Amino acid sequence: MPFLWRSRVRFVDTDFSTRIHYSALFRHFEIAETEFLRSLGVGYAHWFERGFSMPRVHVEADYLVPLRFDDEIDVEVRLERIGKASLTLGFRVILAESGVVAANGRIVGACIDVSSGKSTPIPADIREALERVQAE
Amino acid sequence: MPFLWRSRVRFVDTDFSTRIHYSALFRHFEIAETEFLRSLGVGYAHWFERGFSMPRVHVEADYLVPLRFDDEIDVEVRLERIGKASLTLGFRVILAESGVVAANGRIVGACIDVSSGKSTPIPADIREALERVQAE
Amino acid sequence: MPFLWRSRVRFVDTDFSTRIHYSALFRHFEIAETEFLRSLGVGYAHWFERGFSMPRVHVEADYLVPLRFDDEIDVEVRLERIGKASLTLGFRVILAESGVVAANGRIVGACIDVSSGKSTPIPADIREALERVQAE
Amino acid sequence: MPFLWRSRVRFVDTDFSTRIHYSALFRHFEIAETEFLRSLGVGYAHWFERGFSMPRVHVEADYLVPLRFDDEIDVEVRLERIGKASLTLGFRVILAESGVVAANGRIVGACIDVSSGKSTPIPADIREALERVQAE
Repeated sequence: MPFLWRSRVRFVDTDFSTRIHYSALFRHFEIAETEFLRSLGVGYAHWFERGFSMPRVHVEADYLVPLRFDDEIDVEVRLERIGKASLTLGFRVILAESGVVAANGRIVGACIDVSSGKSTPIPADIREALERVQAE
Repeated sequence: MPFLWRSRVRFVDTDFSTRIHYSALFRHFEIAETEFLRSLGVGYAHWFERGFSMPRVHVEADYLVPLRFDDEIDVEVRLERIGKASLTLGFRVILAESGVVAANGRIVGACIDVSSGKSTPIPADIREALERVQAE
Repeated sequence: MPFLWRSRVRFVDTDFSTRIHYSALFRHFEIAETEFLRSLGVGYAHWFERGFSMPRVHVEADYLVPLRFDDEIDVEVRLERIGKASLTLGFRVILAESGVVAANGRIVGACIDVSSGKSTPIPADIREALERVQAE
Repeated sequence: MPFLWRSRVRFVDTDFSTRIHYSALFRHFEIAETEFLRSLGVGYAHWFERGFSMPRVHVEADYLVPLRFDDEIDVEVRLERIGKASLTLGFRVILAESGVVAANGRIVGACIDVSSGKSTPIPADIREALERVQAE
């Protein structure tokens, strides 16, 4: 079962077109991603304490249906790929009321050693937690 | 010659990783896009006055080199494709001091009739202004 | 009892000082405000449907203790004053773990008629719902 | 003569009310503040290199006239007060076309020693540069 994060489109997320501003959707993706990892016991606090981080190297989003102020949304997070030193997460934004898919997204993060700033393999325990969810 | 917009990484653009937050780059893309169209005489005010708008249907970005507070950047805008009712713009973020390319991006916008919200062909005069720059 | 909205400091809220960026706190205030009004049965959808809105005329915040990534916070909302055509809300940000007050804030909104853009008295039913909470 | 920073209201700054979102104005204040200090030779890079920073302890803004997409604005920065360990800056947002004052603001920053996180006197050379502008 994919991870779902319930959220809502806020004033600050919209622009004068009356729709969500495209960049605001990434804030919702980020929260869903953070909570997805937390739900697996490998939240970002766990990464940082041990000197790892995961900056984005690629992000993308497709906007299918306008999202508007106060729309309730479920952000679905799927683990698409675990590389040696990278992680690909897929997102789907579903309008809670209608079940309509309003947007899709993807981020690719690269695991880095914070002290050197260099790419480094994803730590074994984090990899194991991620592989467990992938196997389900 | 591609259009260049000189900008700078601001406090609010960064996050506690010390790098630019990935979503903040889209603010810089947006400003460069707005100024690119203005430079062609078909700025968004011109679209809105006549009942057209161009919501994004796709956006993407690749982050190659960390951008940090106060870095001066040139955002290069290229017209990649003019469809019947859509527009693809490409972006390149260049560190002004070193000339290093720090990020790339792309947005696809769909021309809509604001009153109906429906996709509609790009108005002829806007298309002509865009085709002129593409021909150069 | 004041209204409380549980929230969390997100990546995008922080800047490279490692603290929350001061402007990000206003996003949390806004969500708490929206949910406070919804809890009283006079959410903003209700205002907009009937042609009213409430742009801010004044905002302020005091930052007492640094807020950092992943900190869980409760945003307390108090109705400070109901004017004829304005509303003052007070905010308090409490670190959920320690109970420490990390920030305070205030917004003053002015009720407007959206079609004219002019200041107008707060509609009677919204006023009544607000006065009920003030009386408690 | 007060320092002026020319800016523009962007898509991302607006919300579906068609006005600027109140929190977006703080991004413009921040850029004006950063450029004001740079113009005095005491830009934030200079503070950080030497282990100082200036987190906000108070911010406020008054919104007088709606700001809308593409409005050109001048953000005026005034040094209101130099305390032993704090700085108060005042802002005024002027619509470039009409000269109308659209908003006012104020921030109070506290000088801190980044390594301890504690309040510390503003370094002498920064104080001198600021006092010079105050004397003018």
